Amino acid sequence: MKAEIISVGTEILLGHIVNTNAVYLSKKLARLGIDLHYSTTVGDNPARLTGAIEEALSRSDIVFTIGGLGPTVDDITLSSICDAVSVELVFNKKIETLIARHYQKRGLKKTPKDAIRQAYIPREARHFSNKVGTAPGILIETGEKILAALPGPPRELIPIFENSIVPYLKKRGFAGREIIKTKRIKIVGLVEAAVNRSVKDLLSIGPETTLGIYVHLGEVELKITSKAKNTKKAMREIKKVEKKIRKRLGKYVYGADADLLESVIGKMLAKKQKTIAVAESATGGLITNRITNISGSSRYFKTGIIAYSNKAKTDLLKVPGDKIKKYGAVSKETALLMAQGVKKLSNSDVALGLTGIAGPTGATRKKPTGLFYIAVATNAFKMIKMCRFTGNREEIKWQASTAALDLARVACARS
Amino acid sequence: MKAEIISVGTEILLGHIVNTNAVYLSKKLARLGIDLHYSTTVGDNPARLTGAIEEALSRSDIVFTIGGLGPTVDDITLSSICDAVSVELVFNKKIETLIARHYQKRGLKKTPKDAIRQAYIPREARHFSNKVGTAPGILIETGEKILAALPGPPRELIPIFENSIVPYLKKRGFAGREIIKTKRIKIVGLVEAAVNRSVKDLLSIGPETTLGIYVHLGEVELKITSKAKNTKKAMREIKKVEKKIRKRLGKYVYGADADLLESVIGKMLAKKQKTIAVAESATGGLITNRITNISGSSRYFKTGIIAYSNKAKTDLLKVPGDKIKKYGAVSKETALLMAQGVKKLSNSDVALGLTGIAGPTGATRKKPTGLFYIAVATNAFKMIKMCRFTGNREEIKWQASTAALDLARVACARS
Repeated sequence: MKAEIISVGTEILLGHIVNTNAVYLSKKLARLGIDLHYSTTVGDNPARLTGAIEEALSRSDIVFTIGGLGPTVDDITLSSICDAVSVELVFNKKIETLIARHYQKRGLKKTPKDAIRQAYIPREARHFSNKVGTAPGILIETGEKILAALPGPPRELIPIFENSIVPYLKKRGFAGREIIKTKRIKIVGLVEAAVNRSVKDLLSIGPETTLGIYVHLGEVELKITSKAKNTKKAMREIKKVEKKIRKRLGKYVYGADADLLESVIGKMLAKKQKTIAVAESATGGLITNRITNISGSSRYFKTGIIAYSNKAKTDLLKVPGDKIKKYGAVSKETALLMAQGVKKLSNSDVALGLTGIAGPTGATRKKPTGLFYIAVATNAFKMIKMCRFTGNREEIKWQASTAALDLARVACARS
Repeated sequence: MKAEIISVGTEILLGHIVNTNAVYLSKKLARLGIDLHYSTTVGDNPARLTGAIEEALSRSDIVFTIGGLGPTVDDITLSSICDAVSVELVFNKKIETLIARHYQKRGLKKTPKDAIRQAYIPREARHFSNKVGTAPGILIETGEKILAALPGPPRELIPIFENSIVPYLKKRGFAGREIIKTKRIKIVGLVEAAVNRSVKDLLSIGPETTLGIYVHLGEVELKITSKAKNTKKAMREIKKVEKKIRKRLGKYVYGADADLLESVIGKMLAKKQKTIAVAESATGGLITNRITNISGSSRYFKTGIIAYSNKAKTDLLKVPGDKIKKYGAVSKETALLMAQGVKKLSNSDVALGLTGIAGPTGATRKKPTGLFYIAVATNAFKMIKMCRFTGNREEIKWQASTAALDLARVACARS
């Protein structure tokens, strides 16, 4: 099974956008055991796109096009496909209904005229519904070859590929004879070099099971990959490695796979029927934003205060003005008083207080950019942490919010 | 001058690495006024790579290969080039000396045996020295066509391209005669189809100046690209189109290029010496997080309240409990009372209030997921907006925060 990707878009050839779709699709095809032989990008030019599709169909078994399915005249993929395989575009009533429904949901009574273009698809093509946008996924069987057209926005492409194309490929017997399973172990509070030192001997276990280290902003991830005849065998190999990692890294492991610090905290709080509140300064709402990204967070999160100014710290959080004056707004004392203030205000079980310098402005020699104090208070105990982060403003905010959520994790476990 | 890129590497086709080199080279070529027609990735397979080079030379004027110049046996680019253009590899004494010097600098007395492979280059090829690694850049003139082979590591590719290839292209008169400039016009409050309708006639202005529509979550972008003899001429063409767009889309245009809604609001507030406060429910801190992503935002942003529960709305924002009972927490009345509450609490000039259902839980038939009420209050006026968004929880939160920031933009302009 030889596959080929054709990405459509002048904006890619101009270097304006990075083709993350091709990366995604390449990874997915590798996991499905389908060999990708070529990945080509062409601009929004009908003749060159038609040529590229013809050539791809002549040398590969399955061709994926990405992009160019939008409602505007520079969306040329379907007409180029028609030229390449000599069929015409025909109007599809069912797609028109889906498009109309999409706009109705957005409060538009009438479908915009241009959007109707997307209801025209190549004759005898299958179409896969797009739950997010208006461009359906298209699949054509032409002779022995398969041609699939996917929309360009990743949030549209990914669900169509996973929910429609993968089942099709499996049903046709093109994918999935050998399976690859992975498990990601998520670590916070240790730098890459420290994680590397702990698991070095596991990094070269063997060709069928591999371990990789990946660094994300403020976190480290260990990815265990196992290739086997079936899921059970692969998972057994993964479990062996996971057990060793967890034994060595202990409390630094906060979860696996889709777990996020905020979801892990959420589960603990929901289970224990406890609540959390946050008082943040320099992270400016990022901590509460992450907490509330979790569906159902209203059960345990009630109140967040973003007290950017000293006045807000005093007025809202009742941090005494003379304490701020004495210790400074960025100090461990203020962080703790903020946590205690929001705890009282909201009557919560766990409360975070954070103050720091996100930079690049506002720093002094004694209080440099990246300096943060993070406090957590519960009925039983309190804890304060000093941290230093580097990077740009958004990177510093992110790392500080991660450190705060990790402190909340420790407090939730003890509450 | 038609150009083409061939990236070599199975690791790209497996999705293990992102092809940032192709993005870099695409951008550079656009700036040099060289049209990139195709960008292809092939694996470490000699037959397929040779085929791709032959085809590229048949249709383009200049072909760049990236990668596959290393010292190991799976580095196949130069031998494939030789096969494609029918020349042989010959030993180059000068390169051997450079390689030996490279290893000596690193404390190795003897050049590793494999590294000697890199001293073999196609007969009559030029070579450009690599100050960082051992693989030289290679350039072959074959008939009217040019073929350049660049090493894969970005820190080797970039200096060779900038210090050797660009001067060569300029000297030959292939680059720098035409430049490409772009300007992105940023729009909020209109869907893609509506923007498309307004500017449809501009989408096919001509080959030298082009207009493209791009959709981002909650926003639409129009990108004007102009190719001309010099920057002044290109900018003049861009200005003409921009003027038309701004005339047609008026208030929906919030900025250009690097502008963000939050930076545009920030500039207005800082200039007018006004302050903003936010009371948000379902966006959970995202609005204030975006506002505080802007460096210097402490000048105009003082206070944010995340009032997730009804109790927090009443306790902190003084939204009367009976009003919440009467109209519901998700209602235009509550949104406005939240805005007015935080305005009073913080003594700000502009205040936002937002309430809604981020979903997927918490929705009812009357108050479905994605329903939001957003209010803004200033000393002079108030405004309330109802919105419906679709997508997952984070996408809905993002769109709601964008709509809120847009409302703040309107209020700031009027304040």
